Amino acid sequence: MAGSSIGQQFKLTTFGESHGAAIGGVVDGVPSNIELDLNLIQLELDRRKPGQSAIVTQRKESDKVQFLSGIFEGKTTGAPIGFMIPNDDQRSGDYSHIKDSFRPSHADFTYETKYGHRDYRGGGRSSARETASRVVAGAIAKQILDKIGVSVIAYVDQVGAIKLTNEDEITISSIEENPVRCPNPEKATQMEELIREVRKDGDTIGGCIKCQITGVPIGLGEPVFDRLNADLGKAILSINAVKAVEFGSGFSSVEMRGSQHNDAFLRDGTTKTNHSGGIQGGISNGMPIDFRIAFKPVATIVQEQNSVDKFGNEVIVSGKGRHDPCVVPRAVPIVEAMSAIVLLDYYLRNKSTQI
Amino acid sequence: MAGSSIGQQFKLTTFGESHGAAIGGVVDGVPSNIELDLNLIQLELDRRKPGQSAIVTQRKESDKVQFLSGIFEGKTTGAPIGFMIPNDDQRSGDYSHIKDSFRPSHADFTYETKYGHRDYRGGGRSSARETASRVVAGAIAKQILDKIGVSVIAYVDQVGAIKLTNEDEITISSIEENPVRCPNPEKATQMEELIREVRKDGDTIGGCIKCQITGVPIGLGEPVFDRLNADLGKAILSINAVKAVEFGSGFSSVEMRGSQHNDAFLRDGTTKTNHSGGIQGGISNGMPIDFRIAFKPVATIVQEQNSVDKFGNEVIVSGKGRHDPCVVPRAVPIVEAMSAIVLLDYYLRNKSTQI
Amino acid sequence: MAGSSIGQQFKLTTFGESHGAAIGGVVDGVPSNIELDLNLIQLELDRRKPGQSAIVTQRKESDKVQFLSGIFEGKTTGAPIGFMIPNDDQRSGDYSHIKDSFRPSHADFTYETKYGHRDYRGGGRSSARETASRVVAGAIAKQILDKIGVSVIAYVDQVGAIKLTNEDEITISSIEENPVRCPNPEKATQMEELIREVRKDGDTIGGCIKCQITGVPIGLGEPVFDRLNADLGKAILSINAVKAVEFGSGFSSVEMRGSQHNDAFLRDGTTKTNHSGGIQGGISNGMPIDFRIAFKPVATIVQEQNSVDKFGNEVIVSGKGRHDPCVVPRAVPIVEAMSAIVLLDYYLRNKSTQI
Amino acid sequence: MAGSSIGQQFKLTTFGESHGAAIGGVVDGVPSNIELDLNLIQLELDRRKPGQSAIVTQRKESDKVQFLSGIFEGKTTGAPIGFMIPNDDQRSGDYSHIKDSFRPSHADFTYETKYGHRDYRGGGRSSARETASRVVAGAIAKQILDKIGVSVIAYVDQVGAIKLTNEDEITISSIEENPVRCPNPEKATQMEELIREVRKDGDTIGGCIKCQITGVPIGLGEPVFDRLNADLGKAILSINAVKAVEFGSGFSSVEMRGSQHNDAFLRDGTTKTNHSGGIQGGISNGMPIDFRIAFKPVATIVQEQNSVDKFGNEVIVSGKGRHDPCVVPRAVPIVEAMSAIVLLDYYLRNKSTQI
Repeated sequence: MAGSSIGQQFKLTTFGESHGAAIGGVVDGVPSNIELDLNLIQLELDRRKPGQSAIVTQRKESDKVQFLSGIFEGKTTGAPIGFMIPNDDQRSGDYSHIKDSFRPSHADFTYETKYGHRDYRGGGRSSARETASRVVAGAIAKQILDKIGVSVIAYVDQVGAIKLTNEDEITISSIEENPVRCPNPEKATQMEELIREVRKDGDTIGGCIKCQITGVPIGLGEPVFDRLNADLGKAILSINAVKAVEFGSGFSSVEMRGSQHNDAFLRDGTTKTNHSGGIQGGISNGMPIDFRIAFKPVATIVQEQNSVDKFGNEVIVSGKGRHDPCVVPRAVPIVEAMSAIVLLDYYLRNKSTQI
Repeated sequence: MAGSSIGQQFKLTTFGESHGAAIGGVVDGVPSNIELDLNLIQLELDRRKPGQSAIVTQRKESDKVQFLSGIFEGKTTGAPIGFMIPNDDQRSGDYSHIKDSFRPSHADFTYETKYGHRDYRGGGRSSARETASRVVAGAIAKQILDKIGVSVIAYVDQVGAIKLTNEDEITISSIEENPVRCPNPEKATQMEELIREVRKDGDTIGGCIKCQITGVPIGLGEPVFDRLNADLGKAILSINAVKAVEFGSGFSSVEMRGSQHNDAFLRDGTTKTNHSGGIQGGISNGMPIDFRIAFKPVATIVQEQNSVDKFGNEVIVSGKGRHDPCVVPRAVPIVEAMSAIVLLDYYLRNKSTQI
Repeated sequence: MAGSSIGQQFKLTTFGESHGAAIGGVVDGVPSNIELDLNLIQLELDRRKPGQSAIVTQRKESDKVQFLSGIFEGKTTGAPIGFMIPNDDQRSGDYSHIKDSFRPSHADFTYETKYGHRDYRGGGRSSARETASRVVAGAIAKQILDKIGVSVIAYVDQVGAIKLTNEDEITISSIEENPVRCPNPEKATQMEELIREVRKDGDTIGGCIKCQITGVPIGLGEPVFDRLNADLGKAILSINAVKAVEFGSGFSSVEMRGSQHNDAFLRDGTTKTNHSGGIQGGISNGMPIDFRIAFKPVATIVQEQNSVDKFGNEVIVSGKGRHDPCVVPRAVPIVEAMSAIVLLDYYLRNKSTQI
Repeated sequence: MAGSSIGQQFKLTTFGESHGAAIGGVVDGVPSNIELDLNLIQLELDRRKPGQSAIVTQRKESDKVQFLSGIFEGKTTGAPIGFMIPNDDQRSGDYSHIKDSFRPSHADFTYETKYGHRDYRGGGRSSARETASRVVAGAIAKQILDKIGVSVIAYVDQVGAIKLTNEDEITISSIEENPVRCPNPEKATQMEELIREVRKDGDTIGGCIKCQITGVPIGLGEPVFDRLNADLGKAILSINAVKAVEFGSGFSSVEMRGSQHNDAFLRDGTTKTNHSGGIQGGISNGMPIDFRIAFKPVATIVQEQNSVDKFGNEVIVSGKGRHDPCVVPRAVPIVEAMSAIVLLDYYLRNKSTQI
């Protein structure tokens, strides 16, 4: 496998299944001598935590992170930060009914075929629980980015067909004020209602998240393969349930002409428009970096579904009711985490451009 | 920088600017003992070549690849394949007018700021010419994939507002029969007309490419960060002018419910629908892998544009007329190349799953 | 830093300082479906453990490893194996006397200068305690290698001036029968006496370890940079206190002529002599791989030493008596571990040589 | 294979066999805006070139390097530097006699077994000719290191039994004044005589090279696996014919006591002795880094040798007389090159230690 690491200078390696003893990770390449507020890290985890509101899964997971190394007298030492989050709600019994069955649009079938057997309890490594480790590393990255003036903010922009439009007023500071994490109260209420309705049907619904990174120094990103947008895209596409990502003008650029789409320069090097989404030739240009992400509806639904088991028999599977009807509210901190990890990594990589 | 390589087991490293002596690359990790048809590789390059039709740039570049190593008696030796493509149409004089100016939505400004100076002739490393090296490596990968039954095919799906719909009949074998590389002759004609019109205006237009990979063994891709879709996405987003990528149902999944979106299994492990786009939990499930890519309109336009130079003066810049009015026809082989490189890399990586 | 990982397909990442909460690591790229005997892993740790005999440090560390992920129903799942070893004998008070002082030939000075501050308790990350994590990963690798017929055995070959010669009979099975881990009982007794004597003087002494790997398939190792000997050498040189490594004939080859040194082939592809040490052109040739490693005398001595502190003052430092008088007896399992990690990594990498 | 790259921030990828069209490479991660003297690079190549004196191989290879990219108006652009060295003395006919035979202590057998076939002309990728590409990259690294005050110097310290002792006066500036590259004229003469005598016998002889790196900033190297000595060791062990490497006190440390071996600090952070060889805990401490390298006698000898072919037949093989009787004189610039590559890579990596 050996695919459990991301980043080059600032590197996260994760481990753990949803029903093992613990999940956790190692953050390597942390710059030294930086004061870390461990409470802020826990607060980010709490934003991802099950049971935080009525519209997310009601699983009981305390998600308390324990730091094992790399921090001394409140400051980073430059050594890797090891951490773990014990799994305290394992309830393995819940999963025996799907031991041999392949749930539609889950990774059961691909894992079973690839590895020859699998930890069938909760999806093993494919469980979204793994993303808690990403949130820890992302929270560390965010604190370091904060010291150099970089800010990463994500929010829900669409649930089902309800989406923010250019007419909708957006108040970034209000994102955490509603359980959907949508920065427009009216749309947030509509989204929340839709999610409740979908859940009542034993079903799930998709959604979109927008992410904006501001205060980015000019020059992050490498030409050719390691473009900043390419690695941000990879990091985002590595999140469960993500089906698409678009930067700046994205798919809407297709119908535009060059004369409309080009971002005219102002004398200070900023641009009048930002169709480029803050990245030019793979390198940050100092304008806000923005991108939009599509999440499919969660595959686990309460409704009964026809499926097959590993012996080729037809079976009926159904979710047990503690799953998210819509993933985007809890995915907001995950998107921020992955973005922060990539940004910090590229910030550190860029330091080698000059001797 | 050190960002000029892609892949782990099958790895491409490229070098070269549009106006240096040559561009080229090294393909490392090539499995040994495989017969390569070098003419087929040149044919792929010809599909990307300037001047191939009336609707692409009329620059004269012969784009003849020379192989320098790694092939002996017609077969790969397992050693790295070094290759180069001489730059025979350098005409550096063309670029003196933009020596100090920043062209809108080009990488001039970000390169200048990041590196302190830049090869202003033709965009240096940010030139799309670099992608010729990718096509060479991709053509090698395609021949190897062919031996294991994997096929990678891309085509133009949209130019401006003209797009293929579900009603449009598609004939894969017709892709190369029109200069747009659209598999529907009627739509191809409309697209071609639009491109001619846009060029007459001294302008450019965006477009979309669809890519489909068939015959993929089950099990390619690693959980967590190195998901097959994540690295395909990175590879695609590393192509010039790409603004977005969506897998399977993509952005349309957002408005769907889980009960609609889930791909029901058949007894043989295939699925009735393929909203997943052939990848489940980051791992290929044996169904066709498909994704769709948005290309913005080319930034270089013949029309005059206001801009600034590196001294902060306002200047006027304009393209010199040998640029593509629409990038997608020539981007088709590039998309195929990047996809083939990633697929083969993951095929080889997957061989280590069992001892 | 980001230097806490080793391996490509089989990859170990470690974390932890001697006086933090725990040390541990993540082993990624473990082939799936392999039965692991967790007791055997603990037994390897016990071979490295302080207090195991009268001639090693008498620190009390239970070194009990806890596995957190990657193993299900007794078999590897292919997912990363996370593990931790709690630090149960932290006694941080012991180290306050060296808080600001630089111990001669320790990493105090280099860490302080590089990172701006350091965890002064027990050397932080430079502590040999970190190698316990390597032994865990190595023990996993050894079990997997065992299934493909590869065996890794190391032993003490020299302590101070007492060394095994060609006349000394060696019984591999006797290695664990004496506390020095020397396969010749007579020499072992002499070595043990020397170590006791050195300790009585409040001093330390160097030593050599030999390692032999048998049953290696032909073809492991990559030409050019990733030669099997090059990465074995790196892995060995990354162990604390190692000053040198020689493969096969090593330094003695310098005085030989080609006609003496060349290993003549037998008809079955084996060779009459093995001056090459089992590696030819960076690739295993099927003969036993052997190398010899020099360990300097441990830097921490009970005797008082003149030194300086970080303010430039002259100070006197002395060890507190719980350190190893000679590192080689406890280093034997570490050498085996690092060797096994590299071998398995290259075994897995080699699987991509053919499609 | 995918083992043809070395370095992380400053990265060299090589390609090419001795009898293909050309050898060459790509140097990625070159800091921008640095003036390069291309003549100095060619001069380094000339130090490695065949035919440079009477005691080395008399093959005719002009070894003229051509730079293809990454340099603009005399300065590095930050883009990868691609380069090639045409093979102008291919004489493939010379090698037909060994097409199916395995030369003793060559890589013929391991390549044939690993890859299924091989370029038998001159050893293919295992040819020492590949090291010319390393010298090019090393010469670039040396020029950059020079700007930050780091100097890398190697010389021949031993040929056969003739070795420099502590009594021998050494004049670094005299290294290039004799064909052996030994900094003591008397010993140089003896060595030269020995080499001539060995050649007359149709035989070869081993030797040692010492390398010293001065002006190294404190703090280069990462704890744990990526120790500066570990990666220097790997780079050195990746050179053809190297059998051993020792840092600082090396094998002689084994017989020393800690009280003798420890390097006492002076008030300015330097040390009285330098048994550590300039590296402490894997990190440079500002003292000169020094190491010593053993090269075996060249495997190709003019004398007839018994061997086998790939069909299991007994055959007789013999060299054709254009090989080096002793490798160390020409290996001096290779050792410097590999050392410079590693040093610069770690210098650049270290820039990420602080934000």
